[in-house]
Amino acid sequence: MDAQSLIACHQKIKGHVLRTPVLRSQALDTLAGGQIFFKCENFQAMGAYKIRGAVHAILGLSAAERARGVVTHSSGNFAQALALAAAKLGVAATIIMPSTASPFKKKAVIGYGGKVLECDPTHEAREAMAEEVRSESGATFIHPSNDLQVILGQGTACLELLEDQPDLDAVFVPVGGGGLLAGTALATHFLGRECQAIGGEPFEVDDAYRSFHSGQLQGNSTTNTIADGLKTMLGDVSFPIIREYAHDIVRVTEEEIISSMRLMWEALKITAEPSSAVALAALLKTRETYAGKRTGLIVSGGNVDLNNLPFH
Amino acid sequence: MDAQSLIACHQKIKGHVLRTPVLRSQALDTLAGGQIFFKCENFQAMGAYKIRGAVHAILGLSAAERARGVVTHSSGNFAQALALAAAKLGVAATIIMPSTASPFKKKAVIGYGGKVLECDPTHEAREAMAEEVRSESGATFIHPSNDLQVILGQGTACLELLEDQPDLDAVFVPVGGGGLLAGTALATHFLGRECQAIGGEPFEVDDAYRSFHSGQLQGNSTTNTIADGLKTMLGDVSFPIIREYAHDIVRVTEEEIISSMRLMWEALKITAEPSSAVALAALLKTRETYAGKRTGLIVSGGNVDLNNLPFH
Repeated sequence: MDAQSLIACHQKIKGHVLRTPVLRSQALDTLAGGQIFFKCENFQAMGAYKIRGAVHAILGLSAAERARGVVTHSSGNFAQALALAAAKLGVAATIIMPSTASPFKKKAVIGYGGKVLECDPTHEAREAMAEEVRSESGATFIHPSNDLQVILGQGTACLELLEDQPDLDAVFVPVGGGGLLAGTALATHFLGRECQAIGGEPFEVDDAYRSFHSGQLQGNSTTNTIADGLKTMLGDVSFPIIREYAHDIVRVTEEEIISSMRLMWEALKITAEPSSAVALAALLKTRETYAGKRTGLIVSGGNVDLNNLPFH
Repeated sequence: MDAQSLIACHQKIKGHVLRTPVLRSQALDTLAGGQIFFKCENFQAMGAYKIRGAVHAILGLSAAERARGVVTHSSGNFAQALALAAAKLGVAATIIMPSTASPFKKKAVIGYGGKVLECDPTHEAREAMAEEVRSESGATFIHPSNDLQVILGQGTACLELLEDQPDLDAVFVPVGGGGLLAGTALATHFLGRECQAIGGEPFEVDDAYRSFHSGQLQGNSTTNTIADGLKTMLGDVSFPIIREYAHDIVRVTEEEIISSMRLMWEALKITAEPSSAVALAALLKTRETYAGKRTGLIVSGGNVDLNNLPFH
């Protein structure tokens, strides 16, 4: 892994993804006591950074592999990302979604041209169905986060941020499956100037925090968080990268997530997912460390249900 | 009035305002049957385009005038805009706000360094108090919309949009006091390539529509709309400009405003005010006329109360 891997990845995908703007807020700078640069991946097509990794993974396939299609399992943004990336690149995509996934999200996947297969809402059921699709159709399985090509793709959001703002001291991102944190950690390490990558994680699903500090991959027994994009766990590809290149993982409470989400909506004037607010909550929690510094924050996504907001 | 007036205004103010990004949405393009370019003035400092006109008005004052301060009356975004512009330029600002204005907005004005004076919530009371402040302190009164320097400032949002997208067929904006529509109409006329300026207005406060079509300045007997920024009326400066240079004014229902607001939040991932949604509602209402066309839309502001959203 080196700077060139990220740069080459960015060259490959940049014609297929949006170069998202970087926003700032005087009020949030004042609150944090430093300068914050928000890379707005919520404006990305399908509303999240995940299109980057999906496009990169598909572009890495041979013509023969592309002809056989791709398959993934996801109840969230990667489902939409792979469906849209595949449609853009003329590849068939099968998305395995738990029967409990929101009808809204299934509709979005179908709208992008993906084929949805429903499975029982267990880890085993989705893995088994993915294997079945793979062996029957010859489709390539693409994991939402535990895949090096996906990780490099996700790292390009930070690459662009560092192109715009080369002197960041740290970049905060949410951590769920770890694809974004791993990619960001590679980008800060190989492309930044002594720039740290920091993951924000809900206390309620703190497998990454425990894994990072113990050195052993840990699981979660419950996933009781508003940050629905972060209920997944690190894997054997993402974890070693995070362990080697990330600086820290900071845990935040549900209350801190909601109040940070409100700050993003009110001060930045964007609709950011709870997962994105986890990164801001982590930054504000460590404000003493980063006071006077220049920090980046990747606003991971903006897919929210307006009928079910946590503000009142 | 000519192109040079707008260009000179932009040169003067551009160091003091944000060059806001232009966002797009595949979903909204599909819905409108054309290409829409959203100029996101909700990202402007204080959350609305009004900072442009406020800065321009103050920059037009002599050193002696600046030393005596500025005064305006507004319950909305111009109150914050003048307070912030004055603070940036080292000028004292007195903002006359009706006693019924939201405490949230008063707090924002005070936060920007403005001095708030409360008056009874009538047209007469605020005019009388403004005159009192003006005559006692020598402060210059700056009207929120019915002022040529303010109008030129507001026109610079469209100037920037046309710099980014020179071939727009039309630009939609909300119309309340008419400052934004007048400025936009000047910009489309003098800087566009056969580009129309179109105002969106709620049926519930359709003075601009009636004035535009009758040729006589009309008032409103009621102002029962969710678009609280549009309750004001055209004036003797804004109206003649709109009458001469705007193409049309399109009225929309409250239901159309709310559904367009939802579209902006869900598809563009931004928090836009109901007033901004009026412009999108007008565009969607005339979609047959603008199908296949390239239209601009100025997202006027993003100051909303998250505890009181119209979604459910």
